Amino acid sequence: MPRTFTGSPVRDLLALTARPEVISFAGGLPAPELFDVDGLRTAFDQALSRRSLQYAPTEGDVDLRVLIADRLTGRGLATGVDDLLVTSGSQQALTLVVTALLEPGAVVAVEEPTYLAALQCFQLADARIVPVAGDEHGMDPAALADVIERERPELLYLVPTFANPTGRTLSLERRVEIAALADRHGLWVVEDDPYSELRYRGEPVPSLATLSDRVLYAGSFSKVGAPGMRLGWLRAPESLMRTLVIVKQAADLHTSTIDQAAAAAYLKANDLDEHIRGLCAAYRERRDAMIAALPSTVPAGTRWSDPDGGMFVWVTLPDGIGRGGVDTGSLVMSALERDVAFVPGAPFYATTPDRSTLRLSFTTNTPDDIAEGMRRLATVLR
Amino acid sequence: MPRTFTGSPVRDLLALTARPEVISFAGGLPAPELFDVDGLRTAFDQALSRRSLQYAPTEGDVDLRVLIADRLTGRGLATGVDDLLVTSGSQQALTLVVTALLEPGAVVAVEEPTYLAALQCFQLADARIVPVAGDEHGMDPAALADVIERERPELLYLVPTFANPTGRTLSLERRVEIAALADRHGLWVVEDDPYSELRYRGEPVPSLATLSDRVLYAGSFSKVGAPGMRLGWLRAPESLMRTLVIVKQAADLHTSTIDQAAAAAYLKANDLDEHIRGLCAAYRERRDAMIAALPSTVPAGTRWSDPDGGMFVWVTLPDGIGRGGVDTGSLVMSALERDVAFVPGAPFYATTPDRSTLRLSFTTNTPDDIAEGMRRLATVLR
Repeated sequence: MPRTFTGSPVRDLLALTARPEVISFAGGLPAPELFDVDGLRTAFDQALSRRSLQYAPTEGDVDLRVLIADRLTGRGLATGVDDLLVTSGSQQALTLVVTALLEPGAVVAVEEPTYLAALQCFQLADARIVPVAGDEHGMDPAALADVIERERPELLYLVPTFANPTGRTLSLERRVEIAALADRHGLWVVEDDPYSELRYRGEPVPSLATLSDRVLYAGSFSKVGAPGMRLGWLRAPESLMRTLVIVKQAADLHTSTIDQAAAAAYLKANDLDEHIRGLCAAYRERRDAMIAALPSTVPAGTRWSDPDGGMFVWVTLPDGIGRGGVDTGSLVMSALERDVAFVPGAPFYATTPDRSTLRLSFTTNTPDDIAEGMRRLATVLR
Repeated sequence: MPRTFTGSPVRDLLALTARPEVISFAGGLPAPELFDVDGLRTAFDQALSRRSLQYAPTEGDVDLRVLIADRLTGRGLATGVDDLLVTSGSQQALTLVVTALLEPGAVVAVEEPTYLAALQCFQLADARIVPVAGDEHGMDPAALADVIERERPELLYLVPTFANPTGRTLSLERRVEIAALADRHGLWVVEDDPYSELRYRGEPVPSLATLSDRVLYAGSFSKVGAPGMRLGWLRAPESLMRTLVIVKQAADLHTSTIDQAAAAAYLKANDLDEHIRGLCAAYRERRDAMIAALPSTVPAGTRWSDPDGGMFVWVTLPDGIGRGGVDTGSLVMSALERDVAFVPGAPFYATTPDRSTLRLSFTTNTPDDIAEGMRRLATVLR
């Protein structure tokens, strides 16, 4: 008997939004017109060799790991090459951690709502998922302390900066408290950090991994480079690295040698920070266009996040006595009929969903298209 | 507490064989000088586009799946595009099947000896591995029937053609019997088939998947194209495909879009069968060189497989009363001191190893280097 699992409603939905006339706020995709196609084409050409077509070490390309280590160190997270495992996207990093650390029935603490595909990983591992309360400043350390006391989780999963789906950022004060809790209780923490370089205002907040040795830090080229290359990395404590490498070996032996070599060639020949500044300039305008359009898109009493970076705005519709608590899932098809798409919020909840929520991504549309898409959305939501 | 797993002694050993003066028969690598570097360089250049740098469907690139389906159909295994899931190497196909089908404690039946990294997958899934006896014609159906009766396995894992590590091929008669057993008892079968196109003599034997709908067929470009691209595929029954796609989604969302697009471009522009004929011509000479050298390399009473294809010769040293049953693991370091490398056989056994065995790969050395390497090996083995 095959085991039974629930698929991702977001990926199922994305299949419906592929019509060109749909303005989609549903995906979590980077804008393809901003990919550095020429730079990457040159990098692949330089990288292609007999060596890059052959099997390679499970840990990953040494040149690439040195370059990633230097980037992390430059951003304040001191990292050596042996601290890093190259993964097939940061999604794989999550699966490896889960396989390496969790026995069936283990408890995983998460923000609620949180990244859907992380919830799927934990469910596949037969983990028990326990939500931790938070607010617009991210997870509440007191609530975490309570969950630790009551549930004894093995693992805490967080997207501390520009979270998916909420766009929220965990404050420094709370990071310090959460790191101290992890240290005190021997809790492993996964800091999933695909978005922090996409900051449109304000100052960077130090990574949780700078504050505790209990943190496994997952990074990715998908949002700042190109997701099609499926390149991520895991920075992990020495005590876990050997187990993680064995798990990675069983998973796929190693990540594509040619994609890794191309990424290394690209990082040597180009200024990725300069490229990211270009992304931030474009995404900042798109973010601003969406935030500007929201008041005339949603009904009175709606709340939304106002993210400093990343890709997402999180919207909570009013309970509205007259409306009897709208379920955004029931609005998806009417939105598609009006050629606009969003993701309902419910799937991002591990336990009891708030069905009045929805996620909007602002990255893949121009400000003009965002304005038009929000006008269409207004006819559904208001 | 992290879980504890045993690493691959083969991959650990490979790190020691990287010195250029070592003639290595240890790896399971294709010969890099036979890679079609120019063809693949052109394919990557053609494939690189905004679309191939973006996220993509979990199932895999449709163009590539059509091309794979056509190749399989042309080889006698009727396959449609929806029967195929593109994987990050066939190693990943194995992990996906294990995650989709096996609860902890499930029983997996295997040939003994068998592919080491498959054993690791089953161990990571906390499966119980039960060996099935066989001989030079592969697994014995009567022994399998007995194991089914006694142990009720969920899954049977086989490399039916030019097996790793033995080089053996399961006869057609036995394939028919094993397929019938699978049908009768509702047993899932994984047919791991990376080597069958590397045939140096004799006629192709029909795939197990042509004989039963209970067979999941895993294929790979690693041995006939380039392993650095990490491209494999799984042909699975419709009843399992949705679950497998969900598991793949959690594992890494999808396989590298650019590598898939490059493989599709390569298959459209080149005659892979012609390339494979070139590989077979070169590997046939290398196989012959190794078989020719064996009588003067090993002690009297040694047995070895005489494979019709693939990459490996399996050697069993004599019990030798005077030698007291040699453990090939104890000879690895002396071989390395003489600048030659092999893999001891013990790690390929799920249960009680025959320590007098060793695996020799003939693919990565020229006939002259094979002759020289075997002379060095003779000083260790005789």
